[in-house]
Amino acid sequence: MAAQTVASTTDSTVNTTDRTADSPVDLGPAAALSCRECGHRVPLGPVFACEKCFGPLEIAYDFSAYDTEELRKRIEAGPSNIWRYAPLLPVPADVAGKPNINPGWTKLVKADNLARELGVTGGLYVKDDSGNPTHSFKDRVVAQAIEAARAFGFTTLSCSSTGNLAGAVGAAAARAGFRSCVFIPHDLEQGKVVMAAIYGGELVGIEGNYDDVNRFCSELIGDPAGEGWGFVNVNLRPYYAEGSKTLAYEICEQLGWQLPDQLVVPIASGSQLTKIDKGLKELIELGLVEDKPYKIFGAQAEGCSPVSVAYKAGHDVVRPQKPNTIAKSLAIGNPADGPYVLDIARRTGGAVEDVNDEQIVDAIKLLARTEGIFAETAGGVTVGVTRKLIESGVLDPTKTTVVLNTGDGLKTLDAVADTGLTATIRPNLDSFREAGLA
Amino acid sequence: MAAQTVASTTDSTVNTTDRTADSPVDLGPAAALSCRECGHRVPLGPVFACEKCFGPLEIAYDFSAYDTEELRKRIEAGPSNIWRYAPLLPVPADVAGKPNINPGWTKLVKADNLARELGVTGGLYVKDDSGNPTHSFKDRVVAQAIEAARAFGFTTLSCSSTGNLAGAVGAAAARAGFRSCVFIPHDLEQGKVVMAAIYGGELVGIEGNYDDVNRFCSELIGDPAGEGWGFVNVNLRPYYAEGSKTLAYEICEQLGWQLPDQLVVPIASGSQLTKIDKGLKELIELGLVEDKPYKIFGAQAEGCSPVSVAYKAGHDVVRPQKPNTIAKSLAIGNPADGPYVLDIARRTGGAVEDVNDEQIVDAIKLLARTEGIFAETAGGVTVGVTRKLIESGVLDPTKTTVVLNTGDGLKTLDAVADTGLTATIRPNLDSFREAGLA
Repeated sequence: MAAQTVASTTDSTVNTTDRTADSPVDLGPAAALSCRECGHRVPLGPVFACEKCFGPLEIAYDFSAYDTEELRKRIEAGPSNIWRYAPLLPVPADVAGKPNINPGWTKLVKADNLARELGVTGGLYVKDDSGNPTHSFKDRVVAQAIEAARAFGFTTLSCSSTGNLAGAVGAAAARAGFRSCVFIPHDLEQGKVVMAAIYGGELVGIEGNYDDVNRFCSELIGDPAGEGWGFVNVNLRPYYAEGSKTLAYEICEQLGWQLPDQLVVPIASGSQLTKIDKGLKELIELGLVEDKPYKIFGAQAEGCSPVSVAYKAGHDVVRPQKPNTIAKSLAIGNPADGPYVLDIARRTGGAVEDVNDEQIVDAIKLLARTEGIFAETAGGVTVGVTRKLIESGVLDPTKTTVVLNTGDGLKTLDAVADTGLTATIRPNLDSFREAGLA
Repeated sequence: MAAQTVASTTDSTVNTTDRTADSPVDLGPAAALSCRECGHRVPLGPVFACEKCFGPLEIAYDFSAYDTEELRKRIEAGPSNIWRYAPLLPVPADVAGKPNINPGWTKLVKADNLARELGVTGGLYVKDDSGNPTHSFKDRVVAQAIEAARAFGFTTLSCSSTGNLAGAVGAAAARAGFRSCVFIPHDLEQGKVVMAAIYGGELVGIEGNYDDVNRFCSELIGDPAGEGWGFVNVNLRPYYAEGSKTLAYEICEQLGWQLPDQLVVPIASGSQLTKIDKGLKELIELGLVEDKPYKIFGAQAEGCSPVSVAYKAGHDVVRPQKPNTIAKSLAIGNPADGPYVLDIARRTGGAVEDVNDEQIVDAIKLLARTEGIFAETAGGVTVGVTRKLIESGVLDPTKTTVVLNTGDGLKTLDAVADTGLTATIRPNLDSFREAGLA
């Protein structure tokens, strides 16, 4: 599976190992980068693929000095954002004082109305990441990338995107004092362009589709023109990805330092799900939560369900798909972390399931009607999958369950454009009564 | 000035005084309703105009039992939302455990980049209420109205609205288990209709303009058909309005229990500004902040600037205007609390200023570019007015200044629709270099 990330990585790997050797960085408890496949370790630097086996690199930490109760107190006394978990992230200890977008500590909503509708008796919660600064979970990962970019001396932040990520990068770069240059397909809807362009960075339309944009970014990383550029989800990916751990930390702390029994997590690249699992395991190892089993369920849209299809077929390998779904923020047809997601779902006793566009829209409306949360299509996917898994008996309604909403319905209004007035009346009481509203 | 609220209030005043006498309610420290004009007190109930002089009623509290340091500790140990201030609000002590939308505790952003651009050296902060559940400050006031509605036994929540309020009422009613029935002009933009309709309540289009909608709502309150209906900004207004005090509380607590020297607050009805002043005075009286002078500056759009015009002319009375501005959430041509705003601006040594549509758009872009905050047009008004007041020497750049952003740019995308791609290139490095992006 590593092969899919090889082509574009070799150049930057060479570049950036040199850079790191010259200037050791302070990223708090982050000790090194470690290959997820072969375990090979390299110093911290803006690299993302193993020089030995081309497997993905991730952060290796040194948490050995922590005392559990001191750590818990330090976290609880921290700021109302992800930096309360700075001791567990690849960021310097004084991160909360640096200019950044400071996402996180979003609401964990006890969804009693939704629970009643779905027949959940064990406690149902929605982790609502629409409360982040640019209203998606992407603020969490970009905030990490900002700190890595600062540590490595990058001056420009970049990414390829079709939506949430572009806005998150633009906003965070503006706050943190970086130049930003974001690449998007040139023919995106005008609303999405405005949401990304408003932050004043370079917003470059590429004549081509999203694959062309990605390919161009890989080319740029290996070229002198890309010197000094941090691509949040490419050469800063190991740092960036760790931001998703904070979802696991917050959920457990907000449950009173308890693991939930079941989590329903959306799958795009699969990175978020794998990092949530990593975060939960860290909390167990650190003694911050009691060690007990938990199940992670992955949620996809039927129109882009490569991991769900592989799960159901019993495969270890994910076969790429050409996406066709309204859940555009999850529309990655060739998810890099797909195999890891399959591992985690199977190891924890979870599952991977998908729902179609109609079920996604129904679920968006269900969540809004019951809990007053207007979710992006990705939230429709997780709520829809939760419902489907309960109906099929795979998800246990008597257990504590946390469902993630990772984005905001205001960004995907088109998906629910059929929603409208329930009545139109003249401005008088007779007309009101005729409409049956009294 | 009270005359403008008389016509629609007499019936409900009679109704609801009876209701209250029958069932005393527990709304925490709220002791009674008191007329802002003549001081006449009546029991807590769903009334909003004085039966003696038709002046506006507001909440009278009994804070006499509080010890300052105990209160401070209780607040600091409270939840990360407005209910940390439950001891200072018209809500029961156990409010945090009841189903509600739980807004507040939004970010107070230290806006160092914006400060540099504006030449502010004394500390500039943006209180960013786009982080609320439906992304505007309206969640604060609606959350209060929900608790009052519960106390008074209402089963339907209602309002007239053209935007933010409709969404806030729809969402909060869904979460809290109320029926909602919101009235809007029938010809609103489809996006705004979707944002209000998604929560599944009744959304009724009225054939007429916003004035017709308001008039109809007043008629409904006095009719048996409106029995059991709480109109958040009419018969629940005294409770609803108190939600704006929480902006003052949060700002001071987030500044380390200090008053800012200067605040720039938008003016629609003027209620928010008067309640922020009330909140600051309460903190002083309770000993939670040191008593020192503060100045409140009111911000309006030139296309709807009745208070600014009156301020500059030295008048005590506000002459109504017909609004014509892109800042639609501030477009109240006949602001009920206008005279009180004039009082406060003059008493505290502040001012009232306005900016035109072009300045509003420039200010939205300035805030986004410097701080990564995408504000609604109302935020463009406050930032634009701040800039104008600094340039004219009225606002002191050496003093601590807090600027309010009360809404979210995603809801007013049209205002900045000219924002777009900075370049379009082919997916190759030559095209990238030609565009001057390297």
